[in-house]
Order: sequence, then structure tokens, then C-alpha cells
Amino acid sequence: MDQKPIPDIVVGRLPIYLRALQRMADDNQRLTSSQELSERLGISAAQIRKDLSQFGEFGKQGTGYNIDFLVAQLRQILKVDRVWDIAVIGAGDIGSAVARYQGFANRGFRVTMIFDIDPGKIGTKIGPFVVQDYTTMIDAIRQAGIRVAMIAVPAVSAQAVADELIKVGVKAILNYAPININVPEGFFVQHTDPVTHLQRMTYYLE
Amino acid sequence: MDQKPIPDIVVGRLPIYLRALQRMADDNQRLTSSQELSERLGISAAQIRKDLSQFGEFGKQGTGYNIDFLVAQLRQILKVDRVWDIAVIGAGDIGSAVARYQGFANRGFRVTMIFDIDPGKIGTKIGPFVVQDYTTMIDAIRQAGIRVAMIAVPAVSAQAVADELIKVGVKAILNYAPININVPEGFFVQHTDPVTHLQRMTYYLE
Repeated sequence: MDQKPIPDIVVGRLPIYLRALQRMADDNQRLTSSQELSERLGISAAQIRKDLSQFGEFGKQGTGYNIDFLVAQLRQILKVDRVWDIAVIGAGDIGSAVARYQGFANRGFRVTMIFDIDPGKIGTKIGPFVVQDYTTMIDAIRQAGIRVAMIAVPAVSAQAVADELIKVGVKAILNYAPININVPEGFFVQHTDPVTHLQRMTYYLE
Repeated sequence: MDQKPIPDIVVGRLPIYLRALQRMADDNQRLTSSQELSERLGISAAQIRKDLSQFGEFGKQGTGYNIDFLVAQLRQILKVDRVWDIAVIGAGDIGSAVARYQGFANRGFRVTMIFDIDPGKIGTKIGPFVVQDYTTMIDAIRQAGIRVAMIAVPAVSAQAVADELIKVGVKAILNYAPININVPEGFFVQHTDPVTHLQRMTYYLE
């Protein structure tokens, strides 16, 4: 596989392809085409062919893509051919929901710990997890070698939590707090906020 | 304000600008600059100036942007100078969390109803809402004139729910189910899936 950098916009589409392909595999489908993927995903077949060709020759002209092979390749490329442990910070509604989320299985992630600062939440159970004291987070994350975290705390605290996480070795943060957080070069953050998604659509409504 | 179409990629950044500006306004800040926004958002100052200039002349050279004015303009452009009622479909962990989410207030949205198909959930309360029977959804949404919905049902049901919503006048759907759903021309869907966000980051990790 060649190692030239893939444009970030392409990297962003790969998990979408992988998700669709894994679903096909779960349905015992063995072959697909850029055309079929295009219909499922609303991305042009030409774009899909171009994106996938960056990683080598997956499909044979006329026979389509071998789904199992493509899934295996994409999992390797996205580094989810392993399982990343996740720490969740914040045991409110959103933090609790993601800690219990069933959708991580077989997709490269599992939640292993959840922290909160609220004495009323510390020690309670969320799914299989006991909510741990935020003041113990640094040691726990360092000891476990956690690299991935999800922040689900109030906006006012999100940057401070991120700063702590980065100090102890977390490299990738998915932020649910409705505020932009900054991380240094070499660290990664993605933001998820239902309102920004909704506003992006209402722009187009009459 | 001129009415030429704004590129979708720019539309996608406007809610990010609005969120940052509203936070500054909440902190009683009156003026900002593309430089300050750039530092908060990790988007270049030149890009921010270019994006905002598409909607008219907001800032004066040297004096910066008037935050209240820019917030008002962006709210109008994104059509969140009003309040959109939202129907939530699915009263599991994610649906419950978004139904209770406090972050919609003053940002153009409010949840007004939640539906589920599970007799064990129908009639129970989630925050201020009584979970309604999914079979009554069509009438309820049509009667209320709902245009915006959030889907938080299992992947296998998500497309069918979207199809129903579109039939009764919903135009914009935020989908939490981990599957791509398709909507006809003139309708809008956004997907939010923690795993695709996380995979987009693990690509870059060693």
C-alpha cells in the first residue's frame, strides 16, 4: 500500500464506505460495485472509485469489489483492525448514552471507563461501568494507556478537560460539548453538536 | 443581502461561526475579529473573512465585527431567527438524551414530541415529554406541521422511518442510526455517528 498522504476529505469518507460495506457483509453479500455504493451513499460512483483507488487496486473491472477484502483493507487503513479503549468524560445524558451505545462493537472501539465530577454520580452504575471520580482520571487514563476519549461535559469545562486529557497521552477526542475546543499539532479533535447539523439544513428550508 | 447560492461547504461553517459568536455575546463581548475567531476555531482568518463576506459587509476594516449584528445576520441566514419544532423518533438511550438536551435553547430548535414503537416505553416520561405511540406519529406530525426530525432508532428501521417522515412533510432529518439513509431531492439529511468521527481520527494515529 503506498504511503502518500490521503487528503483529509477522502479520509472522512472512508468510515462511510466501511460502514456500508460492513452492513453488506453482515447481510452475507460478497460483491458490490461503485454503482451500488453510490446509490446507498449518495456519493458519485466516480468519486467512490477514485477514493478507493488511492489505496490500491481493490476492484477488478467488471467483477466489482470483493466486500470482505475491502472491509479488511479499510479496517487496516483506518486502524480499526484493533480495538481502541475509550474514556468517556461526563456522565450526564449524553455521556451515559454513549457509554451504553451498542454501536461500537466490531467497529474498532469499546468504552472502558467513565468519569464525572458530581459526587451524586460517582459510584453509580451506567451500563456495566461504575462512574469514577474525575480527580482520579489522570492516573487511570495514564495507567490504561488510553488514546481515545469522548468529552460530554458542559461547554464551560470542555477545553480544560481536553487539556488534561492531552497531558496524559490522549491523542483523539470526540467532543459532544457545544463549543469548539483546540488541541495542539499532532492531536485530533472532532466535534459533534446536533444544532450545527440542524442549522446546516434549515439554511435550505423555506 | 444577495441571493446567489452559497457553496455547501461554506454553509457548513456558518453554524460554527454562529456558535462561537453567540458564546462571545453571552460573555458580553461586543466586538471580535477574524483573527480572534481563527484562534478559537482553527479556521484561517482569511477563510473566515471570505466566508462572511459572501453575505455582505459585516465588518469594518480596522474596527472588527460587531458581534450582536453578526449573530443576528447569521441567525437570519441559517433561518434560526425562529424556533423549529423537532420530533424525535426512538426513545432509547440516544433519543432520550437528545430529547432532554438543554443545548437547543436559543439556537433555533426545541423538541416537542418523541415516539417509540416499544409498548414498554410508550406512555413513560422523558424529561417533560410523554413517549407517544409510533403508530400515531403520522397524524401528530402532520397536525403540528413539523419540518425537522431526529431519528434514533435501530439501523434496520431508520430508512423506513425516514420514508414515513418525508411523506408527512418533514424536510430535514438528523439521523443517529448507524446507517446511511437516503431522501429525495429537496429534502435534507445529516448523519451523526460517533464511530465515523472516531475512525476519521484513528487513521492519523500511530
